[in-house]
Amino acid sequence: MAEEFFVVPHDQHHALVKAAYFKRGFSELESDDAAKFCDLASTHGIRTHNALKALHLDSHLGSMAGGCVPGAKIEKIESRFEASQIWNANRKLGQSVAFQAMEEAIALADRYGIGQVSVDNAFHYLWGGGYVMDAAKRGYIAYTNCTAALAEVVPFMGKFPTLGTNPHSWGFPTTDAVGYPVVIDWATSVVAMGRVQQFRREGAPLPPNAAVDADGKPTTDANAAVALLPFGAHKGYGLSLINEIVAGLIGGSLPTLRSRPVPEGEKRTCCFYFQVVHPDAVSGGAFAAGRDQAANVKAVIDDVLGHGNESCMLPGQLEANAAARTAKAGGLLFSRAEIEGFNELAAECSLPEWDIASLAQA
Amino acid sequence: MAEEFFVVPHDQHHALVKAAYFKRGFSELESDDAAKFCDLASTHGIRTHNALKALHLDSHLGSMAGGCVPGAKIEKIESRFEASQIWNANRKLGQSVAFQAMEEAIALADRYGIGQVSVDNAFHYLWGGGYVMDAAKRGYIAYTNCTAALAEVVPFMGKFPTLGTNPHSWGFPTTDAVGYPVVIDWATSVVAMGRVQQFRREGAPLPPNAAVDADGKPTTDANAAVALLPFGAHKGYGLSLINEIVAGLIGGSLPTLRSRPVPEGEKRTCCFYFQVVHPDAVSGGAFAAGRDQAANVKAVIDDVLGHGNESCMLPGQLEANAAARTAKAGGLLFSRAEIEGFNELAAECSLPEWDIASLAQA
Repeated sequence: MAEEFFVVPHDQHHALVKAAYFKRGFSELESDDAAKFCDLASTHGIRTHNALKALHLDSHLGSMAGGCVPGAKIEKIESRFEASQIWNANRKLGQSVAFQAMEEAIALADRYGIGQVSVDNAFHYLWGGGYVMDAAKRGYIAYTNCTAALAEVVPFMGKFPTLGTNPHSWGFPTTDAVGYPVVIDWATSVVAMGRVQQFRREGAPLPPNAAVDADGKPTTDANAAVALLPFGAHKGYGLSLINEIVAGLIGGSLPTLRSRPVPEGEKRTCCFYFQVVHPDAVSGGAFAAGRDQAANVKAVIDDVLGHGNESCMLPGQLEANAAARTAKAGGLLFSRAEIEGFNELAAECSLPEWDIASLAQA
Repeated sequence: MAEEFFVVPHDQHHALVKAAYFKRGFSELESDDAAKFCDLASTHGIRTHNALKALHLDSHLGSMAGGCVPGAKIEKIESRFEASQIWNANRKLGQSVAFQAMEEAIALADRYGIGQVSVDNAFHYLWGGGYVMDAAKRGYIAYTNCTAALAEVVPFMGKFPTLGTNPHSWGFPTTDAVGYPVVIDWATSVVAMGRVQQFRREGAPLPPNAAVDADGKPTTDANAAVALLPFGAHKGYGLSLINEIVAGLIGGSLPTLRSRPVPEGEKRTCCFYFQVVHPDAVSGGAFAAGRDQAANVKAVIDDVLGHGNESCMLPGQLEANAAARTAKAGGLLFSRAEIEGFNELAAECSLPEWDIASLAQA
């Protein structure tokens, strides 16, 4: 049975989400950033990082749990390197930090062709794909990685979870070529812990080599699963390790301490890394058959998806399809259960509930 | 039965490999670079990219086949971006181009914190791990990707090979932390086509989801396999696509045309992308428990490989072990069959053969 969706106007959603963050002590600007980011996620069908999930995370690991500090100021560390910035986020809201860092990296790329911003003492930016997609829509190649809040992933051939689900996100300026940015964005575990819990609720087996039991042995039994495995054996393990090493170079401490109570002198915060490349700064200008850069990228993608591969999808296509549905509906699409979640939030903020009967269905 | 290995002094190997390249018309500098690179590969146990394989590749796709032009000059394209260089390699020997590009990217990183070099009209650089390892040993974070010579890989959910095996290589300056650079370096296919041929010769089944048959259906029958699959389903597919899109932005043309006869006005060359980051340019300097950057990275890695994970390996560890064996033996280690291959090469170059009886065994 197809799920029924209700259409919530963007400004109505923004007002409630902003109010919820503001009530928790975040500044007006932070609350705006948080609401803008939740809109971005819901517009693109990223239900795992909508406003309800974002506020839940803030309750459990963020401002209600000491992981995130409302109103914190970003400190820019002095550096002799012109195309690089080094920030201490002081546990400021991750979405605000990420939006600003990507903006700064874009400014550096405009001048130097490439720019990077590293961030220490960070708190969860939710969905890295959103920031790189935003930059890619503006015409840039963008990349980010971060250390995930909890060590839930076992190294390849190991037994105990010492790695985060450590995602990587890349965005490419392919709107002129295919109509939307190609966005490659995933965690380095086969599945997220939330998916394991879902399999558990549904009584369904896990995919093979996705999780281990208490003895560190691979299991497909969702009830026996206590930790995750990296995707692609040693290759996904290597990709997860990249985030830990980059974070270690920036200032992050032991992965098994992250988001947990730590001894005096230790650190429990995440790190972010952002990078932007200007497409003109890599272009040799010598495209075959008289094509320009966008036409060349289109020709390459058409070749990849030709020859019998027409039913393949591009990374970012599902998100673009969701954005098209959102645009057609004229607002954000939420399930009945999600609308009820927003109404609990409205009650907490002493704001009027959304009248579900008045919302259009899509 | 353990394979027997013979110890070839580095200078003896260098002289022969250099002579073989020089005989094919490469300049003295190119021939030196080629020999230096083969030494690097053999030192680190990379038998798939030793001198015999490198010269075989040159015969089949390189200077003997129009893919590579001995003595070609690199043309630097004018660019307004200070931390970026754009090169037209004019099909110069890949190893020379890659060594120089990495050198240039290091110089940019020294000044800007991050630097990039993109290369159009490139010819195969063999083993990307070698260049990033070299830079990482010198204290830098280094990255490279390239488009592989042939379209042998089927996109996720597709039927026909339209992607290269498109490798990614990352090197990290972890020598102070763990004794060697962490090097994450692999193709985005589950296995290489050479491995499929090896399985075929050995009559062994392929790993699952590594290859497809002529109908585009996954097969474990090495004889039925005609094309490769990306590792990690949509995730490896995305990683492979990155190289195609980056190459498309640089100046590369359709992946299915690469290294093949092309119509007038089309291009058949590969592209390279290099990037170097100075570790000081990402360091916030605020490491926990009074650690410095190297000690912090060591603490992070010790944590990942602790807690029962002590038998896990770091990416780059096998290569470091091979380098230790090479150092202990006092020369490069080759099998009897490989020594015979070198002696065929010596005959072609009218040089004296290596007397296998005079070589030490290891």
